[in-house]
Amino acid sequence: MDNQPPSGIHIHAERFAGDFESLSQIGNTQGGGVNRPALSVEHLEARRWLRERAAQAGLPVRQDAAGNQIVRLASPNPDAKTLIIGSHLDSVPNGGRFDGAYGVLAGLEVLRVIKENGLHLPFHVEVVDFTDEEGTLVSFLGSFAMSGKLAKEDLLNPRGGRQAFLEGLRRAGLDEEKIFLARRDPAELAGYLELHVEQSSRLEEAGIPLGVVQVITGIKFFFVHFYGRMDHTGTTAMDRRKDAGLAAGMFITEFYRLIGEQFPGCLGNIGQVTFTPGAFNIVPAEARLMVEVRSGRKDELLRLAEAAASLGQTIADSQSVRCEVVPVGERYPALMDGHLQDLIRKLANANGWQTMSLSSGAGHDAQSFADICPTAVIFIPSRGGVSHAEDEFSTWEDCLRGAELLLQVVLNFPY
Amino acid sequence: MDNQPPSGIHIHAERFAGDFESLSQIGNTQGGGVNRPALSVEHLEARRWLRERAAQAGLPVRQDAAGNQIVRLASPNPDAKTLIIGSHLDSVPNGGRFDGAYGVLAGLEVLRVIKENGLHLPFHVEVVDFTDEEGTLVSFLGSFAMSGKLAKEDLLNPRGGRQAFLEGLRRAGLDEEKIFLARRDPAELAGYLELHVEQSSRLEEAGIPLGVVQVITGIKFFFVHFYGRMDHTGTTAMDRRKDAGLAAGMFITEFYRLIGEQFPGCLGNIGQVTFTPGAFNIVPAEARLMVEVRSGRKDELLRLAEAAASLGQTIADSQSVRCEVVPVGERYPALMDGHLQDLIRKLANANGWQTMSLSSGAGHDAQSFADICPTAVIFIPSRGGVSHAEDEFSTWEDCLRGAELLLQVVLNFPY
Repeated sequence: MDNQPPSGIHIHAERFAGDFESLSQIGNTQGGGVNRPALSVEHLEARRWLRERAAQAGLPVRQDAAGNQIVRLASPNPDAKTLIIGSHLDSVPNGGRFDGAYGVLAGLEVLRVIKENGLHLPFHVEVVDFTDEEGTLVSFLGSFAMSGKLAKEDLLNPRGGRQAFLEGLRRAGLDEEKIFLARRDPAELAGYLELHVEQSSRLEEAGIPLGVVQVITGIKFFFVHFYGRMDHTGTTAMDRRKDAGLAAGMFITEFYRLIGEQFPGCLGNIGQVTFTPGAFNIVPAEARLMVEVRSGRKDELLRLAEAAASLGQTIADSQSVRCEVVPVGERYPALMDGHLQDLIRKLANANGWQTMSLSSGAGHDAQSFADICPTAVIFIPSRGGVSHAEDEFSTWEDCLRGAELLLQVVLNFPY
Repeated sequence: MDNQPPSGIHIHAERFAGDFESLSQIGNTQGGGVNRPALSVEHLEARRWLRERAAQAGLPVRQDAAGNQIVRLASPNPDAKTLIIGSHLDSVPNGGRFDGAYGVLAGLEVLRVIKENGLHLPFHVEVVDFTDEEGTLVSFLGSFAMSGKLAKEDLLNPRGGRQAFLEGLRRAGLDEEKIFLARRDPAELAGYLELHVEQSSRLEEAGIPLGVVQVITGIKFFFVHFYGRMDHTGTTAMDRRKDAGLAAGMFITEFYRLIGEQFPGCLGNIGQVTFTPGAFNIVPAEARLMVEVRSGRKDELLRLAEAAASLGQTIADSQSVRCEVVPVGERYPALMDGHLQDLIRKLANANGWQTMSLSSGAGHDAQSFADICPTAVIFIPSRGGVSHAEDEFSTWEDCLRGAELLLQVVLNFPY
């Protein structure tokens, strides 16, 4: 390493642990998790807590127009670029304590340690708690706004519903018109780092304590509609129906077979199905399926989405119903910076820590920045791969190791 | 025929047609149907109209404790039993003009003709407009109450929801506590007749104008639940999931295959499916399917329900999820009276009208009476078999023919 960090610079383990315990109390659930959906009362309380902790450390904190909380450690060089350490304090409903919060707290601790040690970096460092990473309201609202990826349509048809979105903005004192002002000029960004729990069990099963993300998989999500004919079930022979529900059942079965047989490296899900009108004795006139597909490769992602649409058409034809695919959203696979991946591996190995290169099936705010500045994500193991659940867990030893590595990556950041 | 009716006694075609047009205006929809769910404002208006028409004909009309409207033509013999001509003025939401209303109006016309001709029958005849045949609230509320088949549980967990049921009662001025008082002593019933549109296309396709029902098929309806495990779709490999939604999809596909291959004479339907929690990116933890099966034979009905439950179990085992079947209700097949079927065929043939013997896949109030008095149902053709839809249609010629036959059956009723 040509830029060895000052020896003896370490995370303050007790303070970091204390912060984690304090934050975990905000919105805590009976099952040991936290319930802090984006811009909920509990989420806003967690953000207040973060601002206070930053202020106590003498670190200035501000909120941008998208509600992102930004804790700053300025470089002596006022013209320096900014390295962002990002993650989020919001959770899925009844989620775990680690997802997001761990990365924000580790970033805060990194800033404190650097500041306490009087180190002057040639770049500003900002820890950003992004708004709505989990997508309770819009999905990646904060990081999309900051990276310039937010579209007006995202706000008009937010996936959590327009009403919930407006209520959240009101609670947080945010102005919908101004959200786009949160955009940052990519030219002022030095890079983006994120430390996160893995949310699957590859590290745990391999007995490896650190993961270096190569790609955040892309997602396409869409509705598949089948339109048949409403019929009285008691008076319509089975072979005379145009049953949208049967088409939906066949689609579910064949969709998973398609992935297993032709797209073994991809993921897919059918998260909801709704039949209309929805009565015991009425043959469904319409069926709507919420479908998503994921892949680390853009071409594969597009081919899988295409194959799913084609499958819907084939099934519709076989059942004399009509099929329509309605796109809802897409995020292309986000490649992490190769040089940063090398740096992370090198620093980890210098400490005697093994690393595994892997993909991230889950989305992260990092993906918003991957195409505008060098971006990297570090994973620590998740027990049993459990995530988005109250019993999500990572050992404290792993948490501490991840934060130490993050500190070293910041100190060695190639600026 | 040993009891030939007075010659020249006929339905008053114009009055009957006029009534049909008037009634069709009540709750009429843009698509040419009617919207008169049980105890809705429109349904109650239709009932008021019926009472007025009966009163204009000098026929006494009363309402029983279940809200059934009863138009009576008394026999000179006060101790005589009563022949019921039943059907219903309620409709499914946005249903057709013929379903139910046709039978009530034909019954009213039969009473008027008999009265006008000064005929004295050895039995009372009552035309009954039963409450909630279509099951918007409870299902067969009126005929179940009158025949003694109503259970307390039916009212506590009505299929349309308790709230809607209570609101309907309030609108109609009915008292829940008293509904059971509508029960009639079977010993006072001479028989039960119902004239109805076929709701399927067997008569039309065979070019036969009249159907004689042999059996009203039995129904079992139940929920099939699959319980799997909630997982983050982006971080859980396909082969590590316990996907309740996939099990549901397989169940839909295999359920219809089961009926087609092993129960070709039966009907089945899956009318609604609900996944929990129901998001694009969450593997469904739970899936609930609304399932019903129908057969004209009780043993077959039970075997099909059993086979469906067993199918759910097999699929659950294959997907490492759990299956639970929750019964919701059942009605066993109702056999129509053989002698009445013979009489109907004989009277029709004497007029040169062909008849077809068939089963009724749809339920009718007649099934409430089949086990307590001689019961028969006559069908007229439905264009294209369309039913429970605004474009339900039967030709006026067929409607008139059915009413004439009903009149003759009443005049020749074997008392």
